[in-house]
Amino acid sequence: MKKYEIGLIGLSVMGQNLALNIARNHSIAVFNRTETKTRNFIKNKVKNQELKATYKLEEFVSSLAKPRKIILMIKAGKPVDLVIDSLLPYLEADDIIIDGGNSYFKDTNRRLRNLKEKNIKYLGVGISGGEAGALHGPSIMPGGNENAYAEVSDILEDAAATTNKGACVSYLGPNSAGHYVKMVHNGIEYGIMEVLAEIYAYLDQVLQLKPDEIGDIFADWNQDFDSYLVEITAKIMHQDDPKTGRKLIDLILDKAKQKGTGKWSVQSALNLGTAIPTINAGVNARLVSALKEERINNSSQFASSTRAVVEKKKMLPILKKTVFFSSVIAYAEGFKLLQAASEEYNYDLNYKEIARIWEAGCIIRSGLLEPIQNAFKENRNLNSLITAQQFKSQLNAAAEEIAPLVESAAKSGLPIPAIHAALDYFNSLKSKKLPANLIQAQRDFFGAHTYQRTDDQGTFHTEWK
Amino acid sequence: MKKYEIGLIGLSVMGQNLALNIARNHSIAVFNRTETKTRNFIKNKVKNQELKATYKLEEFVSSLAKPRKIILMIKAGKPVDLVIDSLLPYLEADDIIIDGGNSYFKDTNRRLRNLKEKNIKYLGVGISGGEAGALHGPSIMPGGNENAYAEVSDILEDAAATTNKGACVSYLGPNSAGHYVKMVHNGIEYGIMEVLAEIYAYLDQVLQLKPDEIGDIFADWNQDFDSYLVEITAKIMHQDDPKTGRKLIDLILDKAKQKGTGKWSVQSALNLGTAIPTINAGVNARLVSALKEERINNSSQFASSTRAVVEKKKMLPILKKTVFFSSVIAYAEGFKLLQAASEEYNYDLNYKEIARIWEAGCIIRSGLLEPIQNAFKENRNLNSLITAQQFKSQLNAAAEEIAPLVESAAKSGLPIPAIHAALDYFNSLKSKKLPANLIQAQRDFFGAHTYQRTDDQGTFHTEWK
Repeated sequence: MKKYEIGLIGLSVMGQNLALNIARNHSIAVFNRTETKTRNFIKNKVKNQELKATYKLEEFVSSLAKPRKIILMIKAGKPVDLVIDSLLPYLEADDIIIDGGNSYFKDTNRRLRNLKEKNIKYLGVGISGGEAGALHGPSIMPGGNENAYAEVSDILEDAAATTNKGACVSYLGPNSAGHYVKMVHNGIEYGIMEVLAEIYAYLDQVLQLKPDEIGDIFADWNQDFDSYLVEITAKIMHQDDPKTGRKLIDLILDKAKQKGTGKWSVQSALNLGTAIPTINAGVNARLVSALKEERINNSSQFASSTRAVVEKKKMLPILKKTVFFSSVIAYAEGFKLLQAASEEYNYDLNYKEIARIWEAGCIIRSGLLEPIQNAFKENRNLNSLITAQQFKSQLNAAAEEIAPLVESAAKSGLPIPAIHAALDYFNSLKSKKLPANLIQAQRDFFGAHTYQRTDDQGTFHTEWK
Repeated sequence: MKKYEIGLIGLSVMGQNLALNIARNHSIAVFNRTETKTRNFIKNKVKNQELKATYKLEEFVSSLAKPRKIILMIKAGKPVDLVIDSLLPYLEADDIIIDGGNSYFKDTNRRLRNLKEKNIKYLGVGISGGEAGALHGPSIMPGGNENAYAEVSDILEDAAATTNKGACVSYLGPNSAGHYVKMVHNGIEYGIMEVLAEIYAYLDQVLQLKPDEIGDIFADWNQDFDSYLVEITAKIMHQDDPKTGRKLIDLILDKAKQKGTGKWSVQSALNLGTAIPTINAGVNARLVSALKEERINNSSQFASSTRAVVEKKKMLPILKKTVFFSSVIAYAEGFKLLQAASEEYNYDLNYKEIARIWEAGCIIRSGLLEPIQNAFKENRNLNSLITAQQFKSQLNAAAEEIAPLVESAAKSGLPIPAIHAALDYFNSLKSKKLPANLIQAQRDFFGAHTYQRTDDQGTFHTEWK
């Protein structure tokens, strides 16, 4: 019986597309809990690929060459544990399980630990690129058992997106390193998406431009940015709704959903004592957006804000710089979180390499990732991207030039939480002096928590008058 | 042998002061792990109170009337479990343990559950007021076993701060209700402290006023605000440093510390799907402030920001309104989080009563708590304080008037993250339309996550061009 190089469980669209992608270069067996899904997939999507459908788990496992390599493309959480448990009776020592979902990094650590006791090798692998990426080449972020990675690296490299620097996949580190990096990737994605949404709101509500005009502006800017998220924003603005003939963007409900990676990024950052305010603002903004009915009810109780009168010609370059500025800050926050995590969890991350594998295939791919790589190439231990010579002076100029935007947004009652957060993060991180001396004084005043002094060592307490 | 009405373990300053406070009305036995602490306390602080020092845990427990009532005033976390475990051999059914520390609410749930199996009654009690509050009357937030509360209510009521509406203590709800409310109290405290710090920074760095002038301004404002935190901010500005003869505030290091309740508030809010951005900004600002060495190093790489030229006379009323505005928003976020938690954890919280017991004794006591009580009295199910008639029009006016402040802060490179967050939270929550339609379109574009429409039911997916 022919043995297949790799197996894949979970035929959602992402799983289907990754299977088709892998099948271009390697023989693959697939399995899905619901049989009809597999049959439909084979019937509608599979042409001449070396792709074997299996309908029983035992059949699936026995169709694989040893050591078996099994990719799970299933919903994060309990389903992953259930599938692993159901696989175990059929597996042998040195078989490899690869979790390609957005698993919570602590779950990945636990699974890796438990499976190691059974001599099963485990990889927690972040995969970014959505449906199209899965099919044509995603960015792949593997972590876990390094020996296991060596055994599947050729398959993952053949499946990954490529740039002139190679395949967008690289072993990132032990344990949950891969899933942690993917979580932060998604956190950055939350931040940039919210920034773009705020810029769109400004173009729409303050400058009162039409979707087609807004789309043209984003497309124009993207000649410089080369950012996937800016690119699709432009396309979205131009998309017609076949049903009504109107622009589709004007018919989509403004209630944003989320699946967990943004929230986890913020919660993990807090546990590591690291601030990621722009990403954090992206998560919070989605939560407030979800209160649609309450917002409608509230809005009826307030007079509409007066719209600030601004000159489009003067404001467009400022908005463009704000996209640049806030995007760099979102990456800066993300990389700083990765540094904190690498130290705490001994991932030994290579930041330049992470920026390299984000350069194609993934959702946050953009022209910024080349200078980010250079920044980390010049200084492996760079504390923050804000001081990288690739960004420093541009960020500093932009931060001051944003003033008319924040003023007109305030006058217009327009919320721009992620832009504010990016601005404040930058201004704070370059401030020699912050007003936290007052906070320490207050804490000592009411709670005798003590404070440090600028002119002496040790901790002090004052009997405040 | 005389039996004492209540016992207290843990003689840190908070524990000492609470013991002295209780001893004014009730007989009390105390115990501390380190004997010398107890001896020093008795020698230096105890005069004629009915307060018995004990030096062995067995002696401590046997000195108490049954059912025994034992307050723990010890560091949150593992120490609480260790002390409970060490107490258990000496306790009997129906004895009552009262945890008066800042315990994590999920720990309180676990302890309550475990102790219930042993027929020990448990109360998780938040106590706010710092050293002075503990001694003269704190705000006390009890939750847990309601029968146990009935047995200790007279002692807690006698110890609590009072207003013309009664003692600042009230049974808040089952399980961890008390510790949850105290956690959110502290979250609000983080938010307001950061707002005051940002206003101080503006007065100091943009208006370039001296600490004494700043102190006068805060004291003047506080005639209207009647806020404890504004009051101590004024006092702090006037405090001299005996060592140097300079103002102490100018010598305190600007690295803020934190103990966990702010972080927990944000993490719990995220788990409940509730945004608390102003509180969140307070937590993040402390984290960035802690990077002092990095900030110094960064600042040397950037030219100093040009200071915006603003007219003091014009700006002071705006700054005052900003304190009002941002403080109301911090409370509004906190109460909204309490509503989400009450629903999720079945606390059945009474928001008017919570505002009442915060009116004296605690750190966030202020003149705002009277109108907050009235708001919840008029509408028990008020979705947000921003639409309460007590605040609505003032908030709306303030939100627009803040524009010159945000503009001049941006021009001056001055971070004001909590003020921005408050402004954006208000503007978002009163926005019928937010740009989250773009976020949903992007999610559908790259991930086929589907979206909802404004003109139709169901979920939709588009094959984007």
